[in-house]
Amino acid sequence: MKALLCEDDGAIRLAEQPDPRVEQPGDVLVRLTLTTICGGDVHLRHGVIPAEKHFVMGHEYVGVVEAVGAAVETVVPGDRVVGAAIISCGVCDRCRVGATQGCRFGGILGAGRSWGGFGGTHAELLRVPFADHTTAKVPDSLDDEQVLFVGDILSTGHYGARAGGVAPGDVVAVLGAGPVGLCAVHCLGLFGASQVVAADLEPERRAIARRLGATATVDPADGPLTAAVLEATGGVEPDVVIECAGSAATLAAAAELVRPGGSMAVVGNPGTNRELPLIDLFNKAVTYTGGLARLDRMPELIRLIDAGRLDLRPLITHRITLDEIVAGFELFGERRDGVVKVAVSI
Amino acid sequence: MKALLCEDDGAIRLAEQPDPRVEQPGDVLVRLTLTTICGGDVHLRHGVIPAEKHFVMGHEYVGVVEAVGAAVETVVPGDRVVGAAIISCGVCDRCRVGATQGCRFGGILGAGRSWGGFGGTHAELLRVPFADHTTAKVPDSLDDEQVLFVGDILSTGHYGARAGGVAPGDVVAVLGAGPVGLCAVHCLGLFGASQVVAADLEPERRAIARRLGATATVDPADGPLTAAVLEATGGVEPDVVIECAGSAATLAAAAELVRPGGSMAVVGNPGTNRELPLIDLFNKAVTYTGGLARLDRMPELIRLIDAGRLDLRPLITHRITLDEIVAGFELFGERRDGVVKVAVSI
Amino acid sequence: MKALLCEDDGAIRLAEQPDPRVEQPGDVLVRLTLTTICGGDVHLRHGVIPAEKHFVMGHEYVGVVEAVGAAVETVVPGDRVVGAAIISCGVCDRCRVGATQGCRFGGILGAGRSWGGFGGTHAELLRVPFADHTTAKVPDSLDDEQVLFVGDILSTGHYGARAGGVAPGDVVAVLGAGPVGLCAVHCLGLFGASQVVAADLEPERRAIARRLGATATVDPADGPLTAAVLEATGGVEPDVVIECAGSAATLAAAAELVRPGGSMAVVGNPGTNRELPLIDLFNKAVTYTGGLARLDRMPELIRLIDAGRLDLRPLITHRITLDEIVAGFELFGERRDGVVKVAVSI
Amino acid sequence: MKALLCEDDGAIRLAEQPDPRVEQPGDVLVRLTLTTICGGDVHLRHGVIPAEKHFVMGHEYVGVVEAVGAAVETVVPGDRVVGAAIISCGVCDRCRVGATQGCRFGGILGAGRSWGGFGGTHAELLRVPFADHTTAKVPDSLDDEQVLFVGDILSTGHYGARAGGVAPGDVVAVLGAGPVGLCAVHCLGLFGASQVVAADLEPERRAIARRLGATATVDPADGPLTAAVLEATGGVEPDVVIECAGSAATLAAAAELVRPGGSMAVVGNPGTNRELPLIDLFNKAVTYTGGLARLDRMPELIRLIDAGRLDLRPLITHRITLDEIVAGFELFGERRDGVVKVAVSI
Repeated sequence: MKALLCEDDGAIRLAEQPDPRVEQPGDVLVRLTLTTICGGDVHLRHGVIPAEKHFVMGHEYVGVVEAVGAAVETVVPGDRVVGAAIISCGVCDRCRVGATQGCRFGGILGAGRSWGGFGGTHAELLRVPFADHTTAKVPDSLDDEQVLFVGDILSTGHYGARAGGVAPGDVVAVLGAGPVGLCAVHCLGLFGASQVVAADLEPERRAIARRLGATATVDPADGPLTAAVLEATGGVEPDVVIECAGSAATLAAAAELVRPGGSMAVVGNPGTNRELPLIDLFNKAVTYTGGLARLDRMPELIRLIDAGRLDLRPLITHRITLDEIVAGFELFGERRDGVVKVAVSI
Repeated sequence: MKALLCEDDGAIRLAEQPDPRVEQPGDVLVRLTLTTICGGDVHLRHGVIPAEKHFVMGHEYVGVVEAVGAAVETVVPGDRVVGAAIISCGVCDRCRVGATQGCRFGGILGAGRSWGGFGGTHAELLRVPFADHTTAKVPDSLDDEQVLFVGDILSTGHYGARAGGVAPGDVVAVLGAGPVGLCAVHCLGLFGASQVVAADLEPERRAIARRLGATATVDPADGPLTAAVLEATGGVEPDVVIECAGSAATLAAAAELVRPGGSMAVVGNPGTNRELPLIDLFNKAVTYTGGLARLDRMPELIRLIDAGRLDLRPLITHRITLDEIVAGFELFGERRDGVVKVAVSI
Repeated sequence: MKALLCEDDGAIRLAEQPDPRVEQPGDVLVRLTLTTICGGDVHLRHGVIPAEKHFVMGHEYVGVVEAVGAAVETVVPGDRVVGAAIISCGVCDRCRVGATQGCRFGGILGAGRSWGGFGGTHAELLRVPFADHTTAKVPDSLDDEQVLFVGDILSTGHYGARAGGVAPGDVVAVLGAGPVGLCAVHCLGLFGASQVVAADLEPERRAIARRLGATATVDPADGPLTAAVLEATGGVEPDVVIECAGSAATLAAAAELVRPGGSMAVVGNPGTNRELPLIDLFNKAVTYTGGLARLDRMPELIRLIDAGRLDLRPLITHRITLDEIVAGFELFGERRDGVVKVAVSI
Repeated sequence: MKALLCEDDGAIRLAEQPDPRVEQPGDVLVRLTLTTICGGDVHLRHGVIPAEKHFVMGHEYVGVVEAVGAAVETVVPGDRVVGAAIISCGVCDRCRVGATQGCRFGGILGAGRSWGGFGGTHAELLRVPFADHTTAKVPDSLDDEQVLFVGDILSTGHYGARAGGVAPGDVVAVLGAGPVGLCAVHCLGLFGASQVVAADLEPERRAIARRLGATATVDPADGPLTAAVLEATGGVEPDVVIECAGSAATLAAAAELVRPGGSMAVVGNPGTNRELPLIDLFNKAVTYTGGLARLDRMPELIRLIDAGRLDLRPLITHRITLDEIVAGFELFGERRDGVVKVAVSI
């Protein structure tokens, strides 16, 4: 099959690779139809996320099941599916208590041996392990683009809102309106937020945020972030701050902004250890949560898309084919042309 | 002051009554501006809810604070407020654990000595006890009609959704689309329901339900209720059923409909003891919750109204003055003229 | 193999049966070492729980894994295990949301075709489906008797305390101190109950209840149950009532006893539909939960046994071998000789 | 009255002060009978917790109500009470959502104008504001020493266990077995911890920890803390780590130790901002919570003491009178003579 390889020096190229196949009883083989380029791909390529190189890239996908292992209960050949970017077995001691990020047998799609050795989605075929836990069926009423983000960034944005414990009436700030932040903004309506203030440096992203449900947006370039957010809320300290940028400045702003007894949910990879204003967190009794995508609500998210309550297609700013993916990476990596997400047909 | 009295024989009449005043340090005196007739008023009048007679009626209101007791912290004279239909002190052993319905010093407004001996809202003035716990300020941006239901039926509908544990993506059925059921329908969007099926015999109420967020409506007169609901959901058993009618038929339908592990939240007063299909509840491990209004989220509901996320004005089908209230009771009690709620200016 | 058969007329007899074997990739084959007679066995035998007859009986067990299917991740041949009385796949739509009782592919061990067609534990060998979800390893430090109840009644008692939401300081009543009730009593210490009042007609069971942590016991034969429980608590209405008898009288007493805003957890099979005092439940805003065993905490329960925090061996009043099991059923069914649980060596 | 004053230079001395009296309708006046010296007192004295000087010290107490304001509902003169070290009104926007630490009208007892200007407990009389929210009655069955810690360190230890979400079967590490850590250790039994590993440098404190429920103790001087804790748990990563020391080393160890998906509850004042290993927290999706005492469970803690489930008297290593309190401060501040807590009779 054709697949996008990441090489030692961070070079990427399309190359012929052996077709994957069902290996374990829990596997399914998926013929991929749509994938998308993620910030994680770029981080892996350039070593921001450290990984042993030479692997097929990509971890967000839609496709059609071509074959299933003997133990698979929930999908059959011919089913169209989306799947989790992060693989987990569902039954080890970690998964059993919901800590799927720490699965004993898991890892990340498209990240090579350092992250479990699974295949990638910038390819024609994908072996999906533990398919009963890592895939979800897509109904005929939805097209590929509508569900493209279910298995990674939409689940992450949803997790941000959920981890923050957003409840009806809450005032929420979302710091960083990149792909994950925009998904968080869009999901906050599902939790009944009364105000959603989104902060981002790029006007195009602020515009999409407003389209997806932000009640106000803030440009951090205009002045101190905390003051701008508080002005937007009418002086109300946010009950929850969802941090989607992972920078020192946004982490500090989140801790400063959140009300006593509130929560900060960090779904932007901080990338490195940082000093946190622990005195503030302590004196205000703030709860700090977060982490990578939690992939346990894919069927619910699909239901919500099908009901018209979620629609992330405004994130798709560019559409290309797998043959054009190397150029797509350049566009995406350089944030050219107002790019948010690039949908890649296969 | 002028006030609506409920007499021994269920007769109601406007009569001159002594002005209430601040009696306890936690009291406020409110000059009422808007009230509304509730099914509870009718039940009290006719003894369905038993109560010793001769009292000022009414328990839903908007008004302006005229005087405050020495211990009041949260409102001052001149503040416009809504208030809880059910009075609770906030500090007794029951209130401390959230069981405000069982408050040692509480009761119900406009229900006489049998229910705590508090005043009623179908009057010009109202003494509100424990005002720090039982009132909430209304911002200038909202008019009286927008917040009229905060202190009773909106809080009850919200409580139904909350008690049922509705989470994003859930499929929910609301059985009974009277005033409380319509509020529940409207609140379900705040909890991320993907489908909301509302059942009611009256076409006008089904129409309002659709306007307030129901994704489908069902007429129980068309055939078996459970089959109709399941047809509307595409065969998906509801995760949560909110029972707002209090009838034997809807209670049984709720227990039959709800999925294994799901919840039924009963916010329609069942009025009498009833046989429940306990075998079904047991075998499906259903959680059954419910009760009268929980009034602990009034500020959040006001925030949501102010943000445009809640708007219950479609429930107001008739507008009258206090002088016309006796006729209003007849209209409301007989469900004439498509009445849902009657707003009464004072 | 040798196994106990339940015949059409409720007759039971030991008979030679074909050895089960691994059939599906998720199966394990277990050589049974210890089983126990349950009230559920008796109900199945006599049709109280309706079931098509001619099946191997028994659903509580300890044994050693003899073979594993290709998809099994968590146990290997030679592991000593306990297992869930109720089978669930762990991945269907029901299991995914925790409603394992409603599993699309599940059922009950030792209950025949009507309940999923699985084998029983009153036998030498058992095929266990979905073993990654339905078994838990036993450490060498524990003997068979210490873990015998993990897969059914201990999990049920624990579920009762958990479903009731018992929190540190709560006052709890347990109505019915049979095997499940005694397990509930014993688990309540894990949730920090300050008072545990156990009610049962049999003095031996009340004595075991006190040994397992009840702070007071009540004999319902001495007078009205609710008055006796309240006397034992010093007049404090229980925060939670765990109903383990399934009778009309105890259900009514539970609803009457529980404080406003409290919970009643029903883990005694009610056996038939019953009238509940819904007015009380409504006016007090009581939460009613319960159902069959929830088997999702077996590893935690084993940890607690290993730590010495749980020890249910006082329930084992009789010890026999599989060859004596028919006589054991008579003893147990007739509640002779102070029997609580009969451990059956294989 | 006689009271201990903290002067500008950190000097402390007993001095005659004006008797406090009931000033607000929610106040009670308490004649103090027992108080205790806290690490917070020492921090305030020496400026580690910054505060404008010249105030009556002390914030933990038992006493008898001498007078009550007109709005007080829950106590009457003659009641023996304990009270919250941290004052909160119970009704402001912060308190209403449980963020009592951020109360608009609150502060800390015995910490002067910088912290709300309330009186201190190292004195003969104390004015207690918002008494319905800040005091709890003590039953006759308990003596003063049994309840001395309810209003501060016991509530803090309990809050650590609760905030960490400890559930039955969990393995928990407590880093720091000073007064708060010992209270946390003792409370963990109420949440069903299967293993409790306590770490402290002082052998006396480790011995008390074992007496109060620790299943193992660790001396950080013996080598790397994380390795020692894991050895004590048999290699099991703790589900929850309760950090009670507030040092950089214990914060880092907590983040390293906790299992994926676990929690760290920080109830030791970190004293300054610090670098946290955010990458670990992110990759493991750890929840970080904590803060000062949460005082909302005093009645439950008293119930548990009365039931014999909690007994913190082993913390009282020294008993003195108010006249000896200056010497007591020296003993306590220098950690001489195995001191843990000094009970001061008044």
